[in-house]
Amino acid sequence: MSKDSGTPTYVEPGEEFDRDMNYIPDRITAEPGRSRDPHDPAARDGALEVATWPIEPGRYRLVAAQACPWANRSIIVRRLLGLEDVLSLGTPGPVHDDRSWTFDLDEGDRDPVLGIERLQEAYFERDPDYPRGITVPALVEVESGKVVTNDFPSITHDLFFEWRDHHRPGAPDLWPEDVREEMEEVMQRVFTEVNNGVYRCGFAGSQASYDAAFDRLWAALDWLEERLTDRRYLMGDVITEADIRLFTTLVRFDAVYHGHFKCNRQRLTEMPALWGYARDLFQTPGFGETIDFEQIKAHYYVVHSDVNPTGIVPRGPEPDWWDSPHGREALGGTPIEAW
Amino acid sequence: MSKDSGTPTYVEPGEEFDRDMNYIPDRITAEPGRSRDPHDPAARDGALEVATWPIEPGRYRLVAAQACPWANRSIIVRRLLGLEDVLSLGTPGPVHDDRSWTFDLDEGDRDPVLGIERLQEAYFERDPDYPRGITVPALVEVESGKVVTNDFPSITHDLFFEWRDHHRPGAPDLWPEDVREEMEEVMQRVFTEVNNGVYRCGFAGSQASYDAAFDRLWAALDWLEERLTDRRYLMGDVITEADIRLFTTLVRFDAVYHGHFKCNRQRLTEMPALWGYARDLFQTPGFGETIDFEQIKAHYYVVHSDVNPTGIVPRGPEPDWWDSPHGREALGGTPIEAW
Repeated sequence: MSKDSGTPTYVEPGEEFDRDMNYIPDRITAEPGRSRDPHDPAARDGALEVATWPIEPGRYRLVAAQACPWANRSIIVRRLLGLEDVLSLGTPGPVHDDRSWTFDLDEGDRDPVLGIERLQEAYFERDPDYPRGITVPALVEVESGKVVTNDFPSITHDLFFEWRDHHRPGAPDLWPEDVREEMEEVMQRVFTEVNNGVYRCGFAGSQASYDAAFDRLWAALDWLEERLTDRRYLMGDVITEADIRLFTTLVRFDAVYHGHFKCNRQRLTEMPALWGYARDLFQTPGFGETIDFEQIKAHYYVVHSDVNPTGIVPRGPEPDWWDSPHGREALGGTPIEAW
Repeated sequence: MSKDSGTPTYVEPGEEFDRDMNYIPDRITAEPGRSRDPHDPAARDGALEVATWPIEPGRYRLVAAQACPWANRSIIVRRLLGLEDVLSLGTPGPVHDDRSWTFDLDEGDRDPVLGIERLQEAYFERDPDYPRGITVPALVEVESGKVVTNDFPSITHDLFFEWRDHHRPGAPDLWPEDVREEMEEVMQRVFTEVNNGVYRCGFAGSQASYDAAFDRLWAALDWLEERLTDRRYLMGDVITEADIRLFTTLVRFDAVYHGHFKCNRQRLTEMPALWGYARDLFQTPGFGETIDFEQIKAHYYVVHSDVNPTGIVPRGPEPDWWDSPHGREALGGTPIEAW
């Protein structure tokens, strides 16, 4: 999807937005060819059909832009599980250089470990003809400089299930066995209707597809508002992967999705349960510290030049409200404490 | 300001927005060559230097699109003063046909009184080489089909001062003598900082000009929020022209200026005094009935194709909040009652 000028386009006139979900499917696992998750949908009796790479401290680098919600998940999970010492983090800046994220926040505009200017180089190292978008998060093997995987759901999944021997003491159980089945359903609905739903609104190529996307999104947000009215977290008393996946969309909602993507029935601040829930997570160690609203706004408003051709980045909304009391302690539950 | 395609542009890259304030300055007055307003800034000892046309019931047609805030003022004033029977109203639809408002809401796409499809025809009837934008509101002489004036501040001013003999019984005093001096200062600040200030944000051609415009706008909104905290209306206990001028911007704030023009430090609903004040006016006879949120949104989001190239019109925000209780009766004052 490129204009003749080489500028990427995000809105296809007349079309619905359809996310390209073809990722490099390799996995990094504790045992060759096997998953340690007994409910892994990609495994048959534990055996995986995709290539697997071994767990090895220091071998890989997580490349994840703070601006990007899909990458943000992996930054939060890495931090909550205390994997900083075994898996380093490279952070591209918020805006793209044509088709690639760039390391323009780093000294000399190069990632200090991989030595590259553009993440595209690691994709081309893996496949010189790599045909799809250069996305974050990506796990890159440091020595070879190759992308191992950019399959964002399996990246956070495997940080939990496969890197367990390296988790910090007291790391949270982000995939509790007793709620797993319902949690998969919740995460699926959150993904299709909310995480991707905001993009479906923002990149709609016609009024009809936007209208339909808007209705789908708000039906899901109404469901979540109700679900979270008497639950501290999505699955009940503890923070799970499902909360991380919802949080990274909610935290961007008023800053970018409300205006830039026209998801404007209400602001997040006008949904009492969701707004309290989002602040509760924001104020939890491992969450808010990964959020940079200036990078988030710069990413969406500058990169999507066919939605915002002026490239002007709004000054609002006021971000300091995220630190205000949320009152969610009244619902009980067991938050993640500082470690 | 036209692109090669003939599509009007609103944002000039690198530039601040600068409103063309050159209007056709003719006036419609009760006495030839004279103003009845003792404080008329355009008059010297009552004498006007511009051409004047006589007051005459049925002679003129007010052309005013409901979508447009500048035109909206004149629709409200005409209604509050009960001038419907002496001054008819033509209402172009919300979107432009290239450089002209069009009568696409009317049967056969023609204004039923003037018989024209595009307001531009009335401008060209006045001046075949009319060089500036085709704006509303405009007062058109029905018989000749010529625009008499499009100078929006003098249009509402003269509906009050010059058409007085035709006002309804009990029509409000929109320009009270005892507060006139301060009222002019308030209106001037509201005009430059708020009415035009939102456009200065939305049409900024650079980040620096946007940032400066944003600061100016919010400094003014903070001033108004404070001023209206203990005053029912801008000038105190009664509704004046100053309130009408502020209202037409506030009523559009969350629907278009917050997202489309990036005036997003807060929503209007988050400014307690301004939000209460705006609803108080909305619920006053003559105000809310002139507002059509669908037309307002369609106008901005479709016409400004260089700000919103997809032309998609947001579904939000929920408009029904405008009918919610505002609690401003506690401040006293004398509202306009139904007549």
